[in-house]
Amino acid sequence: MEFKDVVKQKHLKDFFYPETIAVIGASDRFDKLGYHVMKSLLIGDFKGKVIPINPRLKEIMGLKVYSSLLKYHGKIDLAVFVIPSDKVLDVLDECYQKGIKNAVIITAGFKEAEGLDGKKREELLREKAKSYEISIIGPNTFGIVNLHNNLNASFTPEFSICKRGKVALVSQSGGMSYFFAFLAQRMNIGFSKIVGLGNRVNTDFSDMLLYLKEDPETDVIGIYIEGVDNPRHLVNSIKYVSKEKPVVVYKTGLSSKKDEASKSHTGSIAGRYEIYIGAFKQSGAILTYSSEEFLDAVKVLSQCPMPKGKKIAILSGQAGPAISAADEVERLGFTLASFSEEVRREIENSIPPMAIRSNPVDLGPVWHDEEANSKILKLVIEDQEVDCVVFLIMYASANLKALKRLISYFKKHRPSKPILTSIISPERIWDKEIDELESLKAIANYPSPERAVRALSFLFRYKEVKNRD
Amino acid sequence: MEFKDVVKQKHLKDFFYPETIAVIGASDRFDKLGYHVMKSLLIGDFKGKVIPINPRLKEIMGLKVYSSLLKYHGKIDLAVFVIPSDKVLDVLDECYQKGIKNAVIITAGFKEAEGLDGKKREELLREKAKSYEISIIGPNTFGIVNLHNNLNASFTPEFSICKRGKVALVSQSGGMSYFFAFLAQRMNIGFSKIVGLGNRVNTDFSDMLLYLKEDPETDVIGIYIEGVDNPRHLVNSIKYVSKEKPVVVYKTGLSSKKDEASKSHTGSIAGRYEIYIGAFKQSGAILTYSSEEFLDAVKVLSQCPMPKGKKIAILSGQAGPAISAADEVERLGFTLASFSEEVRREIENSIPPMAIRSNPVDLGPVWHDEEANSKILKLVIEDQEVDCVVFLIMYASANLKALKRLISYFKKHRPSKPILTSIISPERIWDKEIDELESLKAIANYPSPERAVRALSFLFRYKEVKNRD
Repeated sequence: MEFKDVVKQKHLKDFFYPETIAVIGASDRFDKLGYHVMKSLLIGDFKGKVIPINPRLKEIMGLKVYSSLLKYHGKIDLAVFVIPSDKVLDVLDECYQKGIKNAVIITAGFKEAEGLDGKKREELLREKAKSYEISIIGPNTFGIVNLHNNLNASFTPEFSICKRGKVALVSQSGGMSYFFAFLAQRMNIGFSKIVGLGNRVNTDFSDMLLYLKEDPETDVIGIYIEGVDNPRHLVNSIKYVSKEKPVVVYKTGLSSKKDEASKSHTGSIAGRYEIYIGAFKQSGAILTYSSEEFLDAVKVLSQCPMPKGKKIAILSGQAGPAISAADEVERLGFTLASFSEEVRREIENSIPPMAIRSNPVDLGPVWHDEEANSKILKLVIEDQEVDCVVFLIMYASANLKALKRLISYFKKHRPSKPILTSIISPERIWDKEIDELESLKAIANYPSPERAVRALSFLFRYKEVKNRD
Repeated sequence: MEFKDVVKQKHLKDFFYPETIAVIGASDRFDKLGYHVMKSLLIGDFKGKVIPINPRLKEIMGLKVYSSLLKYHGKIDLAVFVIPSDKVLDVLDECYQKGIKNAVIITAGFKEAEGLDGKKREELLREKAKSYEISIIGPNTFGIVNLHNNLNASFTPEFSICKRGKVALVSQSGGMSYFFAFLAQRMNIGFSKIVGLGNRVNTDFSDMLLYLKEDPETDVIGIYIEGVDNPRHLVNSIKYVSKEKPVVVYKTGLSSKKDEASKSHTGSIAGRYEIYIGAFKQSGAILTYSSEEFLDAVKVLSQCPMPKGKKIAILSGQAGPAISAADEVERLGFTLASFSEEVRREIENSIPPMAIRSNPVDLGPVWHDEEANSKILKLVIEDQEVDCVVFLIMYASANLKALKRLISYFKKHRPSKPILTSIISPERIWDKEIDELESLKAIANYPSPERAVRALSFLFRYKEVKNRD
């Protein structure tokens, strides 16, 4: 029996496309999470209805407040809990009465908390949710975000400034999610969904993976894992989903000391790190070992097509960066392409022998010769001996013309091969141009020549995963 | 006999503090390097005199043009050459006649060029320079920059937007220098000098190292090397200089193919990479293996004091980043500090047991309790069991208060231990605050928790170098 036949897939779509959201514990006080959730929903420009629930207030941010869920008579698709933990179970009863099927429980104080109370409360929550057939994200989460639906049901309004894109981020940590989101913004990475799973009382990584596999807005799934409750199920889910979409994993909890740490953090045991890593590798996950590597991987996988093979061409506007990129190719054991005879000849005719031209190719000597430049670019990209292209441009004011030429070239000749660039400019200069270039769905830009080369390893790795069976 | 006794140190200071500069080949045409050199000097706001030399023009950028060096009757301290290579030798004669002792020769077409002409021209240049006792930087260089003297004698005006600081960058590649400069700007790294050595006809890495050792504006020397002409001399220089100031090295040219490449680039043989790496390591260089690592190293070494030992404390506003930092400590084989009894007790009194608190310390639960927070920070920084502190804050709008508290705390308690931070915020938010924090000369901020931890390795490495004898 195949995995897909045994797994009962949850209908998580309604979490991300609700029409009406109740915020239980909405507040007008800045020091309350209920304030930040309201702000997130409104700043995020959510197009549906937001119903604040609070027994002590009449109005929050211009919206009418209801004293309880039951006082609101319309249909509610999603309940967001930001109330004290001892009130969560009673409000879940009200959710059941109102026929609400989905709840994001931001409230902390469940199994991650000290003592038996929290554990017991979480057990009761799980049982109730099961009998009520309510899907819960959380408890103890920052919330969920769907950038394709202007939905920011989290206590972090700043998630709404993330770029919309094709990467789903599923995380076990609020802090890491902020980090990924804001660093991703600087790296020009766009998200589809951002989900904090928290204690995973009945919605786990596996459920989210299966949902995202079918989500048309998601091309790449990135998961940040501290502890795993049901490793076998997760490994099977990754195996199943990664045939369809890349699953990039960053797993922390390497040392035993941290195992204790992450146990208290989201109430699960981080477990024996190496065993998980081995199992994830087997399952077809794209493993990464630092948060920047994680972002580098989701970026290239969401922006570039798969290469046919592994032969790399390096083109550069300057010699130095070409050499450092070629070194990285060597260091990673990758292969520089040998250009086909015709391409080699053309390059030798265009570029003087004093330059690096066999691959890497230093375009410096013809940098201001539009025709020669475009010809070499086209020849190299179209050469059947080349599978991937690394293109490097270091800023100089005179290079803007070259960059614009590149953009218009790629607009006309949409490449079917991955083009990894490292186009480095002073702050705020060229941001627009790089955005434009990256929107072409073949190109991913990185902050250094070496990282542009290294990003290829994630494409190569996913190619292996796809080819496994 | 010690190295310092055998080496004749050049007087390179006049390159960086000239009063009058002649630009030979100054131009008013955008497609000429002579235009960009003029622009660099003027945009850089150089306080001395700039004398453009060009036989065909009367005025450039509002300045009177002289038809030749000899037509200008004042003293000239530095000649910058941006003329065709076949005219360089004649103008050097004029320099001699004018008593000019220092020349930056941007002009290419010497030993890096095809055929015998270039090689021969370079030989003649070397001989003439020797008999005239003229020090030359170049030929085939982008130029030199002294940010402490508003001097931008290069063809890249954008170098002038670099932050002024204590890192000297000496490079063999224009492309890599742009890259370092612009990425450094984003990383908030400040430079003292930026020097392109080009073909090094009579000023080599060693000369520059010896000069920078004495330069009061320079605390850290970063060198980017492709090929080396006199490796033994360089290794001895690094050995001598690194007792005083850290010398960070990024050497490219790993593969034989690239050896050819970098031979043509700046006319020297990149040589057997591993042998150089081994020799540099022996000499006390701080070796780095990617351009980002190079910048991470110069940053921490220029901004942080040396730690007494290697025991690391991790403080974090959120648990996830703390775990990923602790993983990196584990991965690098570093040691987490065990807090002294008193500190441990205080932390246990302040932070509830559900949180990570033994080290790493998750300050999340007391994040809004100013007193508890400051107390823990002070205790941990002052704990004699702690040598280095890694402090992590992921942005949330509510955290601005915490960041400002941190700044005012550090202003009052200037730490004598290195504080590595990873404070991540959306673009353009908190830039000012991070600047302020980094200006305190104890703190260096990195774009990820893992890189903040990894940066410590460069401090540890330099500590070993200092302790060698």
